[in-house]
Amino acid sequence: MIASKAQAQSAPAVRSTIKVIRQRIEGNLAHSPETDFLAIEDPLELSLCSQSGGSWVERNFSVTMRTPGNDEELIYGLLYAEGIIQRAEDIKEIDFTADNDHAAPNRARIRLREGLDASAKTKERHFAVHSSCGACGTVSLGHLEIPKSLRIEDPVEVDSEWIHSLPRQMREQQNTFEQTGGLHAAAIFSSDGQLEVVREDIGRHNALDKAIGTNLLNQRSPCTGQTLCVSGRMSYEIIQKALIARIPIIAGVGAPSSLAVALANDFNLTLIGFLRDHRYNLYSCPERIRTAP
Amino acid sequence: MIASKAQAQSAPAVRSTIKVIRQRIEGNLAHSPETDFLAIEDPLELSLCSQSGGSWVERNFSVTMRTPGNDEELIYGLLYAEGIIQRAEDIKEIDFTADNDHAAPNRARIRLREGLDASAKTKERHFAVHSSCGACGTVSLGHLEIPKSLRIEDPVEVDSEWIHSLPRQMREQQNTFEQTGGLHAAAIFSSDGQLEVVREDIGRHNALDKAIGTNLLNQRSPCTGQTLCVSGRMSYEIIQKALIARIPIIAGVGAPSSLAVALANDFNLTLIGFLRDHRYNLYSCPERIRTAP
Repeated sequence: MIASKAQAQSAPAVRSTIKVIRQRIEGNLAHSPETDFLAIEDPLELSLCSQSGGSWVERNFSVTMRTPGNDEELIYGLLYAEGIIQRAEDIKEIDFTADNDHAAPNRARIRLREGLDASAKTKERHFAVHSSCGACGTVSLGHLEIPKSLRIEDPVEVDSEWIHSLPRQMREQQNTFEQTGGLHAAAIFSSDGQLEVVREDIGRHNALDKAIGTNLLNQRSPCTGQTLCVSGRMSYEIIQKALIARIPIIAGVGAPSSLAVALANDFNLTLIGFLRDHRYNLYSCPERIRTAP
Repeated sequence: MIASKAQAQSAPAVRSTIKVIRQRIEGNLAHSPETDFLAIEDPLELSLCSQSGGSWVERNFSVTMRTPGNDEELIYGLLYAEGIIQRAEDIKEIDFTADNDHAAPNRARIRLREGLDASAKTKERHFAVHSSCGACGTVSLGHLEIPKSLRIEDPVEVDSEWIHSLPRQMREQQNTFEQTGGLHAAAIFSSDGQLEVVREDIGRHNALDKAIGTNLLNQRSPCTGQTLCVSGRMSYEIIQKALIARIPIIAGVGAPSSLAVALANDFNLTLIGFLRDHRYNLYSCPERIRTAP
């Protein structure tokens, strides 16, 4: 299966949930086994290919545990966050294949445009530390330095009342969550308040990569005036992905980490946490939020 | 600062929360800025050292974004899950240092016992795929194969009524969560129902590594008859860490993934999800749970 950029946007929906048998227990009472749905977690192996001096170079890039669906957008968003690509045109083609025992593709060969070197180390990527990842093995503290050019100067302003509506708007588009209770989501809203994209995944980072990858494919990056809403906690890595995508406002249902707040303050990003029950906490750059005088 | 194994158990508590200034917004109304507490997220850089033929070998192992506190236990648990060490004695010494701008240690040099090779690739570790990790760069699908010897034959049985009490027991020991609302937790209970250890971290995987590392330091591994309780969702990686530690029962407040259920069934592990409001779902090996006839 070959998916070009254009095809990627209309790729057929794949299954993101699976039936399992489980027993419901209430107190001490075991009900009979029933079928239920769970979110699928499945590995996708990525390799990068490029042409260099007439010959092809291919290298393994990563294995990502993800929920199948919007795999192209995931790849665009991930490679963008990692500094491998700068725009949608940097990927010429993605070749998905599935081993026999896999319903969804489990390998993706990504052909980069001529001039991009697939074998290059990704030291030049903006950030290299992965929270939740115990063993990348190649990164060091020096990589935590962030280029000052990522500072956000976006003058957008939004109404506080509108902020309260974001989790509901996002949740209404989260089909899989309703079925399984097990997926994270990321949503991007335009500067005029329209919901542009909602993406789901079992991993918080993947959901955001999928949303930002969709932006990239829709030629909507950098994301001037946009607001990001995320379903979970906001760690360093979530903020760095938003920063690279130039999104000026992030609102999360969960708690931010200390580093998330430090990064938001340093880079002039508006950070909102604990967004629920018509209340929220504002941690940085309040000038983008219109409240009562 | 040098922490031997014995010292590690009595290491002084470090700060795991930090004060920030934030504004509370209710509806359209902005309250005055106040101080609040957030969970600290901070990088810890790990390197492994070993003696080989009379000379020292050192290699960078990883950078982990973690909440400071129980760092020694985190290191023991992580290296155990990665297959680098098999028992507490495999680590001779951990040398923690802090750069000037860091309140908590941000580098740890781990000296392995003679005979363990710090420079060896960790291909031999039991599993090599990290969910939530976008760019390990070195893993491939082949690593998803899991040795059949990890199958759990533990005959332990526990009461269903006791299972309902686990999240409450865990939460009562979660000091930092109460303060910040932002930390995951993992708790291990003994076969006779006693709470043995609760550990917190901004990352789910780290919380579990800290709990299992504590087990290891207390010579409590393999964990015959133990029950693990986790605060979040249960993905493949959570199950693999429990399997390696030989824990036969896992109960989580959140949803399991498809791979978590598949792994639990294949390896004879009792998996409980959505444990809340005196109800839960039982996905595998119900014979370890005593319910009403």
